[in-house]
Amino acid sequence: MHEPFIGLTELRRYFSKDVFAGLCGIEIIEAGPGYARVRMIAGEQHLNGLLMVHGGALFTLADMACAAAAHTRGRMAVAVNTTISFVKAGKADTLYAEAHEESRNHKLATYSGKVIDSAGETLALFQGMAYLKAGHLTQNEE
Amino acid sequence: MHEPFIGLTELRRYFSKDVFAGLCGIEIIEAGPGYARVRMIAGEQHLNGLLMVHGGALFTLADMACAAAAHTRGRMAVAVNTTISFVKAGKADTLYAEAHEESRNHKLATYSGKVIDSAGETLALFQGMAYLKAGHLTQNEE
Amino acid sequence: MHEPFIGLTELRRYFSKDVFAGLCGIEIIEAGPGYARVRMIAGEQHLNGLLMVHGGALFTLADMACAAAAHTRGRMAVAVNTTISFVKAGKADTLYAEAHEESRNHKLATYSGKVIDSAGETLALFQGMAYLKAGHLTQNEE
Amino acid sequence: MHEPFIGLTELRRYFSKDVFAGLCGIEIIEAGPGYARVRMIAGEQHLNGLLMVHGGALFTLADMACAAAAHTRGRMAVAVNTTISFVKAGKADTLYAEAHEESRNHKLATYSGKVIDSAGETLALFQGMAYLKAGHLTQNEE
Repeated sequence: MHEPFIGLTELRRYFSKDVFAGLCGIEIIEAGPGYARVRMIAGEQHLNGLLMVHGGALFTLADMACAAAAHTRGRMAVAVNTTISFVKAGKADTLYAEAHEESRNHKLATYSGKVIDSAGETLALFQGMAYLKAGHLTQNEE
Repeated sequence: MHEPFIGLTELRRYFSKDVFAGLCGIEIIEAGPGYARVRMIAGEQHLNGLLMVHGGALFTLADMACAAAAHTRGRMAVAVNTTISFVKAGKADTLYAEAHEESRNHKLATYSGKVIDSAGETLALFQGMAYLKAGHLTQNEE
Repeated sequence: MHEPFIGLTELRRYFSKDVFAGLCGIEIIEAGPGYARVRMIAGEQHLNGLLMVHGGALFTLADMACAAAAHTRGRMAVAVNTTISFVKAGKADTLYAEAHEESRNHKLATYSGKVIDSAGETLALFQGMAYLKAGHLTQNEE
Repeated sequence: MHEPFIGLTELRRYFSKDVFAGLCGIEIIEAGPGYARVRMIAGEQHLNGLLMVHGGALFTLADMACAAAAHTRGRMAVAVNTTISFVKAGKADTLYAEAHEESRNHKLATYSGKVIDSAGETLALFQGMAYLKAGHLTQNEE
């Protein structure tokens, strides 16, 4: 699959319309063909009652890494299945997730990655599958 | 495992400290031994750039259903693994997730459930595993 | 999706070509639209070194339940993602798995189910996704 | 967690009692602390009706890689949850799976890995969680 990389600027522009990701404070900080790295500065608003970063916030970060990686070719995609393992409690800290494309055919692509904290400790592992749609990011322009 | 049901009031009181669940607007609306039903009134803030409910918001709702169900016995628990399949795009609507305990031993419990919309259509299916801790909800009182 | 049920006889005929399922001794014992129940008489050959039924044998039984359920409409399908949680050790016994179709669109269908022993105890829970192909079972006839 | 590596010979001796793995023809060919590589020479008996390697056989290979990796410290472990994504059809060929320990605490350890064919093409991706038991491999000696 020799689809080109659309570039970080275009990718960020596309995801700037993602309100929930914005609410969570997630930013795409790096991207390449089939790869993306995202960041979330986890504060009090991301915590659960045990003062750990909520699994839902960690998942959202992981999901955004997969979504960003899946869109790096310019083709639109939707997540169809994701598995996440929570291996270490996260604290309020700068967290990162990165996703790598492990396979891609005409309709499905698979990503794996980790959520890490600022010390590089793994908080969660994930594996996600995306369904590739017919549309292209730039077609969303009016 | 003949642990008692702690009651919806106690369960809600415990999860009222969950800031991220509060940010997402998630409420526990029903619970019983090993069972919980939660609700999220999905609005503009829960949407992604395609105006679908964000996978992270759907996951957070699913995760809260599992967490609530896991705490119905009063014993503390943390999610260790969750799989979610997104089967239909969600719109701004009142969404529900319910989780049922499928198994429970001394250390691990497993839950399955669905996220549905107000018309009862399935948006996502999930399966989650929780690790049971030594503490009890009421021990968190000072 | 109003695709018809192809019938248990046709389904069994199709899966009779599945050599690995035959090696594992798996039989389809019941089927309906989007539903199948399979059986494996677990003996010494299915055990691991701890004399528990091997996770690979339990998975194969679960996978066959999903595959059979996915083919009940007559359209061909391949598994793309499966999650299994092992919740209780299985002994040499007659084991069953049943899978239910939870959703189905033009390209993807999702199944959930359980592996149970002869006493009805749950040994494993699973959730699987299948990609629907263009072909039909009866087209495989030459 | 500074548990020692028990060695490939001891690991193989332990898994030599695994009848189902033997039936599938799986061998441990390499191991190190938290790591294992296993091999299965897939022949006609591993195929499904489409002449692809059966998902159950690929899973069993993946599961054995996780199990072997989990036992490299000498402590006994059981799989509690595994997710596998099937990304490419496998043919009769020499297949490999390798699993890496991504995290390990007192009770749970997480592994990720791939199943590849003899050309190095990825057939499946997996992520597994094991529950660590009190026993040690060498205690199984009578």
